[in-house]
Amino acid sequence: MDKILVINGPNLNLLGEREPGVYGGEGIDVLTRNITERAEGLGLECEFFQSNHEGAIIDKLHEARTYCGGVILNAGAYTHYSYAIRDAISAIKIPVIEVHISNVDAREEFRANSVIAPVCRGSISGFGFGSYYLAVAALAEILGK
Amino acid sequence: MDKILVINGPNLNLLGEREPGVYGGEGIDVLTRNITERAEGLGLECEFFQSNHEGAIIDKLHEARTYCGGVILNAGAYTHYSYAIRDAISAIKIPVIEVHISNVDAREEFRANSVIAPVCRGSISGFGFGSYYLAVAALAEILGK
Amino acid sequence: MDKILVINGPNLNLLGEREPGVYGGEGIDVLTRNITERAEGLGLECEFFQSNHEGAIIDKLHEARTYCGGVILNAGAYTHYSYAIRDAISAIKIPVIEVHISNVDAREEFRANSVIAPVCRGSISGFGFGSYYLAVAALAEILGK
Amino acid sequence: MDKILVINGPNLNLLGEREPGVYGGEGIDVLTRNITERAEGLGLECEFFQSNHEGAIIDKLHEARTYCGGVILNAGAYTHYSYAIRDAISAIKIPVIEVHISNVDAREEFRANSVIAPVCRGSISGFGFGSYYLAVAALAEILGK
Amino acid sequence: MDKILVINGPNLNLLGEREPGVYGGEGIDVLTRNITERAEGLGLECEFFQSNHEGAIIDKLHEARTYCGGVILNAGAYTHYSYAIRDAISAIKIPVIEVHISNVDAREEFRANSVIAPVCRGSISGFGFGSYYLAVAALAEILGK
Amino acid sequence: MDKILVINGPNLNLLGEREPGVYGGEGIDVLTRNITERAEGLGLECEFFQSNHEGAIIDKLHEARTYCGGVILNAGAYTHYSYAIRDAISAIKIPVIEVHISNVDAREEFRANSVIAPVCRGSISGFGFGSYYLAVAALAEILGK
Amino acid sequence: MDKILVINGPNLNLLGEREPGVYGGEGIDVLTRNITERAEGLGLECEFFQSNHEGAIIDKLHEARTYCGGVILNAGAYTHYSYAIRDAISAIKIPVIEVHISNVDAREEFRANSVIAPVCRGSISGFGFGSYYLAVAALAEILGK
Amino acid sequence: MDKILVINGPNLNLLGEREPGVYGGEGIDVLTRNITERAEGLGLECEFFQSNHEGAIIDKLHEARTYCGGVILNAGAYTHYSYAIRDAISAIKIPVIEVHISNVDAREEFRANSVIAPVCRGSISGFGFGSYYLAVAALAEILGK
Amino acid sequence: MDKILVINGPNLNLLGEREPGVYGGEGIDVLTRNITERAEGLGLECEFFQSNHEGAIIDKLHEARTYCGGVILNAGAYTHYSYAIRDAISAIKIPVIEVHISNVDAREEFRANSVIAPVCRGSISGFGFGSYYLAVAALAEILGK
Amino acid sequence: MDKILVINGPNLNLLGEREPGVYGGEGIDVLTRNITERAEGLGLECEFFQSNHEGAIIDKLHEARTYCGGVILNAGAYTHYSYAIRDAISAIKIPVIEVHISNVDAREEFRANSVIAPVCRGSISGFGFGSYYLAVAALAEILGK
Amino acid sequence: MDKILVINGPNLNLLGEREPGVYGGEGIDVLTRNITERAEGLGLECEFFQSNHEGAIIDKLHEARTYCGGVILNAGAYTHYSYAIRDAISAIKIPVIEVHISNVDAREEFRANSVIAPVCRGSISGFGFGSYYLAVAALAEILGK
Amino acid sequence: MDKILVINGPNLNLLGEREPGVYGGEGIDVLTRNITERAEGLGLECEFFQSNHEGAIIDKLHEARTYCGGVILNAGAYTHYSYAIRDAISAIKIPVIEVHISNVDAREEFRANSVIAPVCRGSISGFGFGSYYLAVAALAEILGK
Repeated sequence: MDKILVINGPNLNLLGEREPGVYGGEGIDVLTRNITERAEGLGLECEFFQSNHEGAIIDKLHEARTYCGGVILNAGAYTHYSYAIRDAISAIKIPVIEVHISNVDAREEFRANSVIAPVCRGSISGFGFGSYYLAVAALAEILGK
Repeated sequence: MDKILVINGPNLNLLGEREPGVYGGEGIDVLTRNITERAEGLGLECEFFQSNHEGAIIDKLHEARTYCGGVILNAGAYTHYSYAIRDAISAIKIPVIEVHISNVDAREEFRANSVIAPVCRGSISGFGFGSYYLAVAALAEILGK
Repeated sequence: MDKILVINGPNLNLLGEREPGVYGGEGIDVLTRNITERAEGLGLECEFFQSNHEGAIIDKLHEARTYCGGVILNAGAYTHYSYAIRDAISAIKIPVIEVHISNVDAREEFRANSVIAPVCRGSISGFGFGSYYLAVAALAEILGK
Repeated sequence: MDKILVINGPNLNLLGEREPGVYGGEGIDVLTRNITERAEGLGLECEFFQSNHEGAIIDKLHEARTYCGGVILNAGAYTHYSYAIRDAISAIKIPVIEVHISNVDAREEFRANSVIAPVCRGSISGFGFGSYYLAVAALAEILGK
Repeated sequence: MDKILVINGPNLNLLGEREPGVYGGEGIDVLTRNITERAEGLGLECEFFQSNHEGAIIDKLHEARTYCGGVILNAGAYTHYSYAIRDAISAIKIPVIEVHISNVDAREEFRANSVIAPVCRGSISGFGFGSYYLAVAALAEILGK
Repeated sequence: MDKILVINGPNLNLLGEREPGVYGGEGIDVLTRNITERAEGLGLECEFFQSNHEGAIIDKLHEARTYCGGVILNAGAYTHYSYAIRDAISAIKIPVIEVHISNVDAREEFRANSVIAPVCRGSISGFGFGSYYLAVAALAEILGK
Repeated sequence: MDKILVINGPNLNLLGEREPGVYGGEGIDVLTRNITERAEGLGLECEFFQSNHEGAIIDKLHEARTYCGGVILNAGAYTHYSYAIRDAISAIKIPVIEVHISNVDAREEFRANSVIAPVCRGSISGFGFGSYYLAVAALAEILGK
Repeated sequence: MDKILVINGPNLNLLGEREPGVYGGEGIDVLTRNITERAEGLGLECEFFQSNHEGAIIDKLHEARTYCGGVILNAGAYTHYSYAIRDAISAIKIPVIEVHISNVDAREEFRANSVIAPVCRGSISGFGFGSYYLAVAALAEILGK
Repeated sequence: MDKILVINGPNLNLLGEREPGVYGGEGIDVLTRNITERAEGLGLECEFFQSNHEGAIIDKLHEARTYCGGVILNAGAYTHYSYAIRDAISAIKIPVIEVHISNVDAREEFRANSVIAPVCRGSISGFGFGSYYLAVAALAEILGK
Repeated sequence: MDKILVINGPNLNLLGEREPGVYGGEGIDVLTRNITERAEGLGLECEFFQSNHEGAIIDKLHEARTYCGGVILNAGAYTHYSYAIRDAISAIKIPVIEVHISNVDAREEFRANSVIAPVCRGSISGFGFGSYYLAVAALAEILGK
Repeated sequence: MDKILVINGPNLNLLGEREPGVYGGEGIDVLTRNITERAEGLGLECEFFQSNHEGAIIDKLHEARTYCGGVILNAGAYTHYSYAIRDAISAIKIPVIEVHISNVDAREEFRANSVIAPVCRGSISGFGFGSYYLAVAALAEILGK
Repeated sequence: MDKILVINGPNLNLLGEREPGVYGGEGIDVLTRNITERAEGLGLECEFFQSNHEGAIIDKLHEARTYCGGVILNAGAYTHYSYAIRDAISAIKIPVIEVHISNVDAREEFRANSVIAPVCRGSISGFGFGSYYLAVAALAEILGK
């Protein structure tokens, strides 16, 4: 069974508690469980990683390149300025899909710019937790599942 | 069976012929057929509309509000400047999903800005024809299919 | 009796239905009727034209130059980027008055810029349907009624 | 009889003498007389105030909130940078209508930006003295005359 | 005999009547006749198309790719914002030459930027109707006439 | 007993009445009384000055340099563009503390820029009337109370 | 006794040694001791945290939400670009006060912009160590001490 | 004997006391005396006016148009944003010469932009009090002395 | 026989050797010979001048005004910043035509701006050496050949 | 007798012939003669230098530092971009005065920015040839004449 | 023997594997070995540190100030936005030399701006691994080796 | 023995005399002698060229392409705007190394941008004369010495 990695960046550990109007009222546990189910249904094994540390996300991306088929990345606010994460995505060869829970273009102006989008395979935003589920489906397709 | 509308904007009629390195070598017929199949599998009936005319796209969006559950919209280059299409999306109440075949953020700078994204429900780009298939799945979920 | 033309641009056909908080709850029919009455009271005959097509608005402006004394133009979102409509206004010699239902300066930033204002005779915005009625009065004055 | 206030900002005391090509050859006396007549015809009593002092315009706006039904304001060049006048307009509850004699968008670039427009009820420009007359009509309508 | 297409964009139907100081006093008929003569002298057959509709220009460019050797395009004001026409030019394989009657760089600031220039073969502006005649000569050279 | 001056700029005379959601429901009298009490508790005598006139604020700053130990300045909207007040602060040698009732960075974009901050000793904002009380404490400390 | 958290961001561990002309000659130990004394005098218990790691500051802010009444945050240079810290402040419900030792507006241009200010309760800068003491007083007031 | 007016704007009353490194150590009295002597030597009578009020400077400019041959204006910080003073200069017909004591281009960036320069006859800066003396000579020449 | 001058600016002496992919593989000798032939065929005598010195190009333009009917100018990189050459073109009365070998709009961003275009009679770019030949034809037309 | 150098930059050799509406109808000879007379009256000997070459102006500035008391520099269009001339002015220790014949702020936007002003002693513009005469007077004063 | 520290920032652990076209095909081990040899030849002992964590780089810079003579820093993508690393460099007194393997100015636009360059002693880029070797030589010179 | 060329641009002839605080107190002779020695030690023969003329630097770069192995270029202020020198560097095939004596990023803002950097092989700045010595070492390495 192919492995994929789901990385959640800064403040996503507070899902369900943080601004529920924007991010929904369910926590990261529910998200994790649902993704796992969907992935398994498509023949994919999921690993999950959450960190508020830019460097830890980079370390994990590097690590993933050796044993994962692809990555689903919600880089949180790092999306908007972390050229270091961008370089990490370029440096590894596996496909990385950018996801966002909310419609980032409909919020504060700084959220409309993604410095990682140009080096990701594709981007999905605005579907709540559904953004992750669609990304799982996309990765499955890319990995020939 | 619920109906959804797939709108393809300017120059997408030349799919398969136009810059195959960017948009792939298959034409709009293949795209249409594949979307139809996937949609039907999810209990959705599909209508297709392609136009190079900004006004015609607006007319169609207005029309769709009376008999469609949602819209999948690839506005082509109008994505980057048509505030009139943006207003049409705001004006109708059904969900509109923005799709792009290529990763628009990885191309010319003007393509990184979408004036319609803030009023769409969500956005999917970079997965080739797959962007549409994911949008169908997203709409099915939103419509409770 | 002198003739004037009232042009309503993109999405104004949905008046009454579209964002009633911004544009009011009454439709284009009521607007048309009221303008006609006021215009007739001032000795002016009214023609009405609505289109979502930039090109059609240009065609109509050209046409109007031969038989109308002036134009009241709500160019909708085209206000903010249609240099082609701007050129059409410059090209014809009759006075064109820019109107907006809402206070465009109090909304999204892109609405604060009008590319047609520099070539219009004058501009009226923020008075709801009243913006049109004031424009009728203004045209009557200009035409010596 | 309801009272309205007409405020003329900096350099408008020189009307008739200052750049007649732009502002017309008639002075502020003629303007005052004409506005008064039109207002009275609509059942409105007019008070007039002219000052070149930003602070005096703010003082007057504050004062007007206690006994006027609305204000017609030609803020002259303060239109383009006086956030203090803007705050005064927001602070009082009566409607304020922005007027300009000339078409400000057709002149120097700095005149295209109004910092007070977002907090005014509406805006009228480009009709010569007629801008004021239309504003009187607009206020009469707002005040239910 | 090879065929070439001459496309005139918005407001160019008013040539001769519109701002004669900028565009000259002769109409589109004279222009058409002169181009035809010059083209025939060089062994080229000319088709002419004028439209104020962005979408119609795109449709025509698509159509031309099947039976024309090249296109001379005066996109009028669309030159400055129509990324959709730009994409149409990229999508077809035949050479497109941008022409302007006036020296666009010597007029309003927005006219100094052409969004279609980067995808045209070459650009000619400022020679009055002569810009078209030079473009005919250029196309003849490119087509090996 | 040392003397300090508290200057309130434009529109602050309307405190309590103006946008109570932003500035609170209590008036300038309450503010004045509270500051006086707190200042006296710290061995400082307070003078108060409110004006909507930029020039009057400059005059007062000049005057204060001869008999005050320091100034607490809420310059209202002048904060964002009055380089003349900035120069007055630089010109006098006594410490000036910038205060704001609301969190100016959380409001309209133009409020995020203070042209006087670079020449003030320090800046306090967002604590409601508390911003002034903290400034009194700060001045007391600076003056060695 | 209520608990408050004082977070010092990057390079503040070098206080006393780093650019004494800007930050003063006393170290973080003196600062810590003084804050503790002042806080205790107001019935508040203090916890201190210093880190050069953006992620660690986010982790600590999250943690603090469960047992602290408020936070005093000197985010150092992260103030100017850490949208991730900004999101952490938004995500927790307790009040966060931004402090700076120096007058950040009087230094390099990049220091004039704070990306965290819009989501903090208030902001205090320029009073040397005094900025922290004022923040303690402000928190005490907010917490009803 | 012809009359000229010398206007000194905000903070120039503090000459000699304010930033002597920039503006010199001598006060406005010395300046006034020296200008008077030089002017009289050239057959010109001088009136002096200093105000910190933008509006008062405008009032004075208006007044001067009736009895002065020209104006020497040091608008202080208003130089950089007072479009109202700019309009006053345009509105009167007598020549106005802009002077600055210091080299404004060598100081803070905001001082490099003069909004009044485009409507002044000429501009002199950087010569200390000498800037005024040169302006007197210039006015004398313009007035045919 | 009328004389025209062809000026080639910086680095054009290396034609044929410099970036042949952009500028073609033929040298300035071939260019010169071809232009001469074409010009003679149209009754024009050609002088050629190449320099890498901005000042020398200005000197030559001045000189040309006394004995040439017109100039063809490829200012190379000076096109993008030499306001001095721009002023030289304005200063002389004979027509100057701007030419570029490559499509400058399709290259680095700085090449999209021409500071000399606003003062040239017309502009031709993107046709390889053909740009010069078209310019010769244009000059012949302007000179009534 | 002290020596001063007057440098005239690009295109000033065409004075009298070039745009007489802007620069006057008299040539550089008249200018030279008048300056000489005025300088001699003040005990100053004049050397004149005109060049269209940026490098030659730099060479001359360097040379002047060894035998001149000061320089009057009209750098023409180099004023707006020649950082090399700016560096030359900084490098020599003698005072350099910037002059312009026309009011550069009242012309094209690019002329409003002087890159050499920050390193000149002072600046004089807008007085026609009088700008030079005033500069001579200023230099005489600086040199203690 | 003096000690120097070589810090490699984010993604440089993947040297040799990551974009070999840009960074070369040899890994960080080869780089380390070569630097050590060269340093020892110049009497310098080398310590190496690589981290993807911004905070860890700051911690290390702080640490180095107590036992190293200088630092060679390739901050990777942090170069372009880490004001926190910039502050760390300012805070320590030992010289820091910025190095880059590739020519950062020849790549994406965001790489042309270094926020750390202004506080480094010097900067070397574009020489592949040679950039480090040159930095070793530079440090040796600075340390008087 | 291989030959290299060292080009010093504008104002560098005044080294030692010009702003010694920035450029050091030693002249170009010392620099020349030191470079020669170091180069010879590495088997390289040096030619030196200094000019204040942009065109002369271009001429020399062209010339060098025929007999030099590489160039060390300190373009002085031309670094910041000479696209003509940039094109010359692109046009020749030998490696060009950009050097600066001072840390250009730590000075005026305009010095932070190098228009030639993108086409140079590498860049070295901030090491005083040492920048040249390092460049010699770099060239030696590139040339296989």
